[in-house]
Amino acid sequence: MADLLREIGTVGTDPARGGYSRPGYSDAELTLREWFVDHAGRRGLDVDADRNGIVWAWWNPTGGPLHDAVVTGSHLDSVPGGGAFDGPLGVASALVAVDRLQAAGVRPARPLGLAVFPEEEGSRFGVACLGSRLLTGDIAPERAAALADPDGVTFAEAAARHGLDPRHLGRDRAALDRIGLFVELHVEQGRGLIDLDRPVAVATSILGHGRWRLTVTGQGNHAGTTLMGDRRDPLVAAAAMVTTVRDIAAAVPDARATVGRLQPVPGGTNVIASAVHLWLDARHPDDAVTADVVAAVHDRARSIAAAEGCAVQLVEESRSPTVHLDRALRDRLSGILPDAPLLATGAGHDAGVLSAHVPAGMLFVRNPTGVSHAPAEHVEDADAESGADALAAVLLDLLTAST
Amino acid sequence: MADLLREIGTVGTDPARGGYSRPGYSDAELTLREWFVDHAGRRGLDVDADRNGIVWAWWNPTGGPLHDAVVTGSHLDSVPGGGAFDGPLGVASALVAVDRLQAAGVRPARPLGLAVFPEEEGSRFGVACLGSRLLTGDIAPERAAALADPDGVTFAEAAARHGLDPRHLGRDRAALDRIGLFVELHVEQGRGLIDLDRPVAVATSILGHGRWRLTVTGQGNHAGTTLMGDRRDPLVAAAAMVTTVRDIAAAVPDARATVGRLQPVPGGTNVIASAVHLWLDARHPDDAVTADVVAAVHDRARSIAAAEGCAVQLVEESRSPTVHLDRALRDRLSGILPDAPLLATGAGHDAGVLSAHVPAGMLFVRNPTGVSHAPAEHVEDADAESGADALAAVLLDLLTAST
Repeated sequence: MADLLREIGTVGTDPARGGYSRPGYSDAELTLREWFVDHAGRRGLDVDADRNGIVWAWWNPTGGPLHDAVVTGSHLDSVPGGGAFDGPLGVASALVAVDRLQAAGVRPARPLGLAVFPEEEGSRFGVACLGSRLLTGDIAPERAAALADPDGVTFAEAAARHGLDPRHLGRDRAALDRIGLFVELHVEQGRGLIDLDRPVAVATSILGHGRWRLTVTGQGNHAGTTLMGDRRDPLVAAAAMVTTVRDIAAAVPDARATVGRLQPVPGGTNVIASAVHLWLDARHPDDAVTADVVAAVHDRARSIAAAEGCAVQLVEESRSPTVHLDRALRDRLSGILPDAPLLATGAGHDAGVLSAHVPAGMLFVRNPTGVSHAPAEHVEDADAESGADALAAVLLDLLTAST
Repeated sequence: MADLLREIGTVGTDPARGGYSRPGYSDAELTLREWFVDHAGRRGLDVDADRNGIVWAWWNPTGGPLHDAVVTGSHLDSVPGGGAFDGPLGVASALVAVDRLQAAGVRPARPLGLAVFPEEEGSRFGVACLGSRLLTGDIAPERAAALADPDGVTFAEAAARHGLDPRHLGRDRAALDRIGLFVELHVEQGRGLIDLDRPVAVATSILGHGRWRLTVTGQGNHAGTTLMGDRRDPLVAAAAMVTTVRDIAAAVPDARATVGRLQPVPGGTNVIASAVHLWLDARHPDDAVTADVVAAVHDRARSIAAAEGCAVQLVEESRSPTVHLDRALRDRLSGILPDAPLLATGAGHDAGVLSAHVPAGMLFVRNPTGVSHAPAEHVEDADAESGADALAAVLLDLLTAST
């Protein structure tokens, strides 16, 4: 495990932010895909990419009934300045699990697919789990095609540059039907396993979450010549909104609301901004409460904007309900891994998107810092081995037991 | 005038922000320099660039005593998403004024220099009036060389790419000594001439101003998995600082303080920021009051950061005292332009930097929107003609009268 991850340790490092920046379809992410394809080939797997840019590597692809493949995998893109494990740990663990099964002479009774989903973080085009949402039809292909990155490059353009036909994006029933069940291994992004002192957990649920873009507009002007009383400064309004987001979420048990991305336009030191874009990430186990939090933010944002002579618009970019992962699969994972505790997660995952269509489960591996989406994210080598062992045990059971 | 400005109307347009983005040494700014050099050549002027990247065009360069040139000019760079006139109006007016003097058969008794100063806005490398500060020695050349743009390109690298030798940056006594006096024409960046119903004004003073960078550091983490009570979110702290900056400045008569540029790091939607950079632009006629405002911001910022479990650092990037422009030159300009009212400005200018070394004056041309550093900045054709007329009258007097 450690050797495999070390091979990609210098890909997409971000000297300015620390950690890694590997946006979807960036050179860094494409380099990691090549690394995956190379390793899949060395293990004798059949590799192809589907029309939504998901990379699949198959062991025993025709060796069982249709619609009955066991699929595992994760993603290789990162948030800006993210950690080394969020995504790649699941992909590397899948490769190592195949090694262990092959070394043990296992002959799978079902096909095993290793999947790499593009743009899981939504860091480049704004919608998280874009690959799995396209596969399942959870996002309209026209909407996905039109999503633009901060440089104005659309997803359709980025996809076309890398061999996809934008006209063929969208729900892929044949690919989806192949998946009998999906198990994703992922670094834990909280402190659950630290507190429980265990290396690996089985997931129960994925917190409902969504992204909303607020655009505050005012009057751009000169920072030196415009008197304080004459201003309609959207950054002053946006600042009050950031404070409000925190205050609203802090008052609602179990809610999380965050502004982590904020862009003044034009963004000059000696320029009063004319507009500010800020993004709200809001989550709660009860989707109705998430909606209430967003409504409260919108309501307060309108008052704040009005008080500054500004205006505000709120647009929903994506929303995912709270997902309770398939109970039968979860029980089966717990049966295979009796020492693994059950844990909920506040992070979103492709497994959550897939779970509306196929039985999906997750394994988490301990993160001794409890920090994720930041360079401090970490996994000890021994825990990574435990994770790969757990995944290998799960795959062995799933591939060889009668279904 | 209108024709001349129309020639550059499509250079450096910014579809995302509106208006123009022409950072120092960008393709857009270099295209404008070529435009200037071409026009200077057509008028028979001798053109050269000095070792700090200032472009000079000389009429009658050897036709008078040393140290006695009349110099006019301005800049061609812009703030991000700026207007069409801030800078280019002064350069174009200088060319048109030369046309008028040449058409009238004027034979200058002194050299006339047209100067284009690079990176006046400081939008790319952070320090405003970088060209004039290098020329005068107001900034150490090593410090200027090390300034980096948002992509990490240093001023030394950008300058070297465009033919300058970074080792030769800095105080240029020969170039400075040539300047007998300097007059800069500029679009007004406030509403003074609207209120007075006049097209052209003579400047009295330039408001003291400076830039300070605040860096707030906290703990980057996952926006979904980190409970509200466990956060050390530097963007929440930075937001409170933005509010504080406005509140402090609003309570001090004549003070202006602005945050127009703010960057969360890493800046992901689903990522609690690990750090935030924000820039404070603060101005007041009394430099001691500006210092008090900045000290108050720093003090409050420390309390705010501490309350959020964050830390803050404040670094001064540049500071310019309030400048009272040369009284004798101002009176002379008023004598030549008896209808032009006297106006102070809150904006910084190369004329302010030069005024510590040579007599410097300014003319302002009415801006019917009162808005600057934004696409809405405007000058009516008739007022631009009046400005060029005024500059021609000033140059005629200065070039032909005995000094």
